[in-house]
Amino acid sequence: MKREAALKVTLLAGGVGGAKMAEGLAALGDIELSIIGNVADDDAFHGLWVSPDIDTLTYSLGGMINRQQGWGLADEGTRALDTLTMLGEDTWMMLGDKDFGLHIYRTMRRAKGDRPSEIARDVAKAFGVKPQILLPTDDKVQTRVRTDDGWISFQDYFVRRKCAPEVRELQFDGIEEAEPTKEALTALGEADLIVIAPSNPLVSIAPILETKGLRGAVARAKAPKIAVSPFIAGKVVKGPADRMMAALGLRADAAGVAERYAGWLDCLIIDHQDEALSADINAHGISAHCSDILMKDQADKARLGREIVGLGRQWLKKQLKEGRAG
Amino acid sequence: MKREAALKVTLLAGGVGGAKMAEGLAALGDIELSIIGNVADDDAFHGLWVSPDIDTLTYSLGGMINRQQGWGLADEGTRALDTLTMLGEDTWMMLGDKDFGLHIYRTMRRAKGDRPSEIARDVAKAFGVKPQILLPTDDKVQTRVRTDDGWISFQDYFVRRKCAPEVRELQFDGIEEAEPTKEALTALGEADLIVIAPSNPLVSIAPILETKGLRGAVARAKAPKIAVSPFIAGKVVKGPADRMMAALGLRADAAGVAERYAGWLDCLIIDHQDEALSADINAHGISAHCSDILMKDQADKARLGREIVGLGRQWLKKQLKEGRAG
Repeated sequence: MKREAALKVTLLAGGVGGAKMAEGLAALGDIELSIIGNVADDDAFHGLWVSPDIDTLTYSLGGMINRQQGWGLADEGTRALDTLTMLGEDTWMMLGDKDFGLHIYRTMRRAKGDRPSEIARDVAKAFGVKPQILLPTDDKVQTRVRTDDGWISFQDYFVRRKCAPEVRELQFDGIEEAEPTKEALTALGEADLIVIAPSNPLVSIAPILETKGLRGAVARAKAPKIAVSPFIAGKVVKGPADRMMAALGLRADAAGVAERYAGWLDCLIIDHQDEALSADINAHGISAHCSDILMKDQADKARLGREIVGLGRQWLKKQLKEGRAG
Repeated sequence: MKREAALKVTLLAGGVGGAKMAEGLAALGDIELSIIGNVADDDAFHGLWVSPDIDTLTYSLGGMINRQQGWGLADEGTRALDTLTMLGEDTWMMLGDKDFGLHIYRTMRRAKGDRPSEIARDVAKAFGVKPQILLPTDDKVQTRVRTDDGWISFQDYFVRRKCAPEVRELQFDGIEEAEPTKEALTALGEADLIVIAPSNPLVSIAPILETKGLRGAVARAKAPKIAVSPFIAGKVVKGPADRMMAALGLRADAAGVAERYAGWLDCLIIDHQDEALSADINAHGISAHCSDILMKDQADKARLGREIVGLGRQWLKKQLKEGRAG
């Protein structure tokens, strides 16, 4: 039996949910995985540049993530942060000692003028990450959240205020001028399958898609585009996407996600519990596919990864048949 | 009995030996202590500004020093440095996790444009340091060491190469342009007693004295000037001063130290073992005073501190008498 060729899969991913999906796909032996991560929640802390979503991908795929919390490194210390606290710094952003080593390194390389993409690639390599971790842009894009107290940074909203304030508006500072990386454009152009992780559509996936040229590259790509819903039964597994979407007057369920991705998405994988939403999803020209989408452990991640890639291959065969018929 | 007024003591100090002397003086209740530290072995590591001698003073006087090694903080970790090693950085400079917290803070404040003196003052306060830690200059001065392999930085010579290369020449880059701080000038001008710690005369005390105006301020000060020899029986307790002085053709003993400080020093405290050098020291117009100068523990430091201050008070009384007589 002839072995199927390695499928080129490009994943668009945010933080924790994105990293889980990345792990599920990375567990498959017969694909070449590239991941375009989110840099819009990057921020400076104590003069160091921190890139939480990219680090969560790196730590997860390097097998060094703290599995209990889903972010940060295992076996971490807080000595550096404790010193900063003692020195009077506001240390609500949890940064571990190992973590600080990376932030120091990143900041030093950025100061030298190295491209953030190259830094992320070298860091991933040092952490033993096999898939490619790509940045949508090397430019600075920063999510800002308008609350009743005014505009605040994403980490201020997410970590310091624990997503408590109602979100009135979102904005990605710098996105108009940000140039897409050639690596991200290539990964989208050459993909056999594009996967959208069950990440927050508004603050994880949107800043990737809204980077100049990237939404177009996704839409134009011949590859089937399959997303996994971050919603199960009207709730997200982690993070504020449900409350955020509701607060912004958007439909806060899997059908609301379909609405966000309408126009280019081929298939949305939803949970069995959300089967009733299929018709609403189909109405956006998106095929709804039911499955168990909760990723509790490595086995769940790999199973979902396999299912997505299986679906992708089916889609490709269908396209090929239609192409021949046409 | 009337209590004697708090004596204003200004100490010139380098790293480990300087910090021990500072602790000995700080243990006395009846003096106001200011310490002018050495910044010429400061350097950048991984993009962070490290100030080893000032930190050794701060950690010692804050009671948080690692007493076994005499530098660095107690209960330290190496997670940040291990990450930097994993990322391919050259990590011969031992920097602990708590330590990194301080270097991150210092670098951030410097980037904001804050004066290094103000940063050092705020750090000392946060570490619970009672004496004033002052910098000779807020400008960048860096000791360079010429070896047979060419010019290298002081930390490269001291830490990375463990003082193994022969020293052919010393140079303090930037010292010609460096402006003295007003704090250092004031501490010298207002001192009742100036003490020179048993630090390396060539790389710890010289860069302080050679900062514009500081040698003059010491020389002009009415206060008696008392130094403690870093040599005992022709050897230094710690560091490369003995080999360094010999390699540069200087006399490598307590009398060699007297030669370095001739012209302005009043009294050199030497070890009982070096009593035979008294005549050579006196020949430089410096009074030799014998004592036990090895500081093995806190009691030794305090005893030596008390002895120095006692000597200083005697000197002041003598000056007063001579003044009345004159």
